[in-house]
Amino acid sequence: MSWTENVRRVVPYTPGEQPKEQNIIKLNTNENPYPPSPAVRVAIREVTEEGMRRYPDPSADVLVSAIAEEYGVEKEEVFVGVGSDDVLAMAFLTFFNSEKPVLFPDITYSFYDVWADLYRIPYECMPLKDDFTIDPEDYKKENGGVILPNPNAPTGVCMGTDAIESIIKSNPDSVVIIDEAYVDFGAVSVLPLIRKYDNLLVVQTMSKSRSLAGMRIGFAFGDAKLIKYLNDVKFSFNSYTMNQTALAAGVAAVKDRAYFDTCCKKIIATREWVKAELKDLGFAFPDAKSNFIFATHLEYPAKKLFDELKSRKIYVRYFNKPRIDNYIRITIGTDAQMRAFLNAVTEILDK
Amino acid sequence: MSWTENVRRVVPYTPGEQPKEQNIIKLNTNENPYPPSPAVRVAIREVTEEGMRRYPDPSADVLVSAIAEEYGVEKEEVFVGVGSDDVLAMAFLTFFNSEKPVLFPDITYSFYDVWADLYRIPYECMPLKDDFTIDPEDYKKENGGVILPNPNAPTGVCMGTDAIESIIKSNPDSVVIIDEAYVDFGAVSVLPLIRKYDNLLVVQTMSKSRSLAGMRIGFAFGDAKLIKYLNDVKFSFNSYTMNQTALAAGVAAVKDRAYFDTCCKKIIATREWVKAELKDLGFAFPDAKSNFIFATHLEYPAKKLFDELKSRKIYVRYFNKPRIDNYIRITIGTDAQMRAFLNAVTEILDK
Repeated sequence: MSWTENVRRVVPYTPGEQPKEQNIIKLNTNENPYPPSPAVRVAIREVTEEGMRRYPDPSADVLVSAIAEEYGVEKEEVFVGVGSDDVLAMAFLTFFNSEKPVLFPDITYSFYDVWADLYRIPYECMPLKDDFTIDPEDYKKENGGVILPNPNAPTGVCMGTDAIESIIKSNPDSVVIIDEAYVDFGAVSVLPLIRKYDNLLVVQTMSKSRSLAGMRIGFAFGDAKLIKYLNDVKFSFNSYTMNQTALAAGVAAVKDRAYFDTCCKKIIATREWVKAELKDLGFAFPDAKSNFIFATHLEYPAKKLFDELKSRKIYVRYFNKPRIDNYIRITIGTDAQMRAFLNAVTEILDK
Repeated sequence: MSWTENVRRVVPYTPGEQPKEQNIIKLNTNENPYPPSPAVRVAIREVTEEGMRRYPDPSADVLVSAIAEEYGVEKEEVFVGVGSDDVLAMAFLTFFNSEKPVLFPDITYSFYDVWADLYRIPYECMPLKDDFTIDPEDYKKENGGVILPNPNAPTGVCMGTDAIESIIKSNPDSVVIIDEAYVDFGAVSVLPLIRKYDNLLVVQTMSKSRSLAGMRIGFAFGDAKLIKYLNDVKFSFNSYTMNQTALAAGVAAVKDRAYFDTCCKKIIATREWVKAELKDLGFAFPDAKSNFIFATHLEYPAKKLFDELKSRKIYVRYFNKPRIDNYIRITIGTDAQMRAFLNAVTEILDK
């Protein structure tokens, strides 16, 4: 034998392309087209050499406190990590340890099955309905955990709070994770439910609505006992995950509520305008409440459209997967970027 | 039952105290007393808002390339993570998947058994000899992996390259991890051996010798195939672990070799001077090649000394563990800090 026999073999997640060329319109990884709050840059510049030299506070207290204050919860109800991916990876490791399958939709964030495979957790994918909505009843059978994004990715479709609550309520023996990466663009958070159900973890991120994908800051809310379990595992994995600049950036971003509100509103307005334009161009799409639209053209094949756009230096996302292989996912950029995108699409369709 | 039955229960690692009070002399967590290279601050200030807004390069190419160039290896032989703890946590998850026990010393970095417990990996602690040296023969029996720090922590004791090579050579069926967190303060790295043995992973960090504990940057070297396996698992866990400022800081730090050399030399000189002083004060200690000294006083109890120092706002580290409960671990600070420490010790012993 050889050491390679003891290696954990996995099929790694493939992130969206990060093209290195300049002058492209990048609508493929759901980044925010606007810069982060100006306070972020100031905060990062103020990180001292003393701060860099010393270990960060393992409890990330400044950031946890700022988030708790902004969201009106206790510090003990907040968890932070290196992007919501880190938060979710820790949550899978902490909470999904049953022999029963973890449940999530067949069309969803493509990292869920990767984490399940990584940790050898059994899972079962529940098919979305034909209109891409989730049937809450699918998540009321025996399971080892439930994870649902709201809005869902890459569809952008929302579930109502009542439907989500019915799922949480039906699963007292499992942790239910609601992944709210895109919630700030018009959906409703189930955060208030953490006081009612101790099996609920609500995960959010600063990557999208706070324009900080490059700083890797995710966070989560839950009952204090649940968060304690999560922190125990996190401290057993890496005591100091948040570096000094991430702590400073996160605090500055979360405190600038006015900037955050303005930014989200701009993206929502652009999204609604793009929806109207896409409809006129012959596209169909579920009613996205995210910073992206998941659209299919009634005549023009999605893969071809994706390639044509790419050749014009406009990047959107295409998933070569069953049921969604005739869709493209379009991140909402600035008005100017979306104008250029719509012009390109018009040109391609007219050819 | 309840959801809590599926929770992964762990006893989390307890990091060294990070006191919030000012005007203390902090010799308890092996931080570097000198600031990072001035180039680091410049590099962080130059991170653009565009950089913060967008996802970082998942391959961390700028940092991997800078490390590869500085250390004379190929990019494919380099792995990076959020401090060496992240690198080690990923390595445990990737390589230690046998039913046989992973081997490490009984007195060593106290995170090894925490990771083993976290991942439910069997392990066996091999006792150090009475002089705190490692017997290489202990690591030549059947095992599921080997991890050894060199220099060892908290003892500071080094093992020779020949002894380490004999362990690697005897274990073709296991991955052998050499944790070189403290290697830059006078020990010899086994990095050249990665070209000879594909089962060797050499782990280092920028937290100590490059004064960047607050930025969380660890790295590792190994055969390209071994690094590929590690990256597959890392990409399945979190695609983007290194934020933009960590990438910028790491590149700047690794490129400033002159500053790094000067800084390490200063700490080594201070350490050797402190050793002589400690000897005169009646301490015994193994010959540390790290940025700390692990010392026991021939008459004065370690715990009492630790408490007395703490009351004088001088923090060292005390481990209440078998075999080492009469030792204190003293991080090497500036000459002025060590003068204050030695004066305090003299005063305490004279009382």
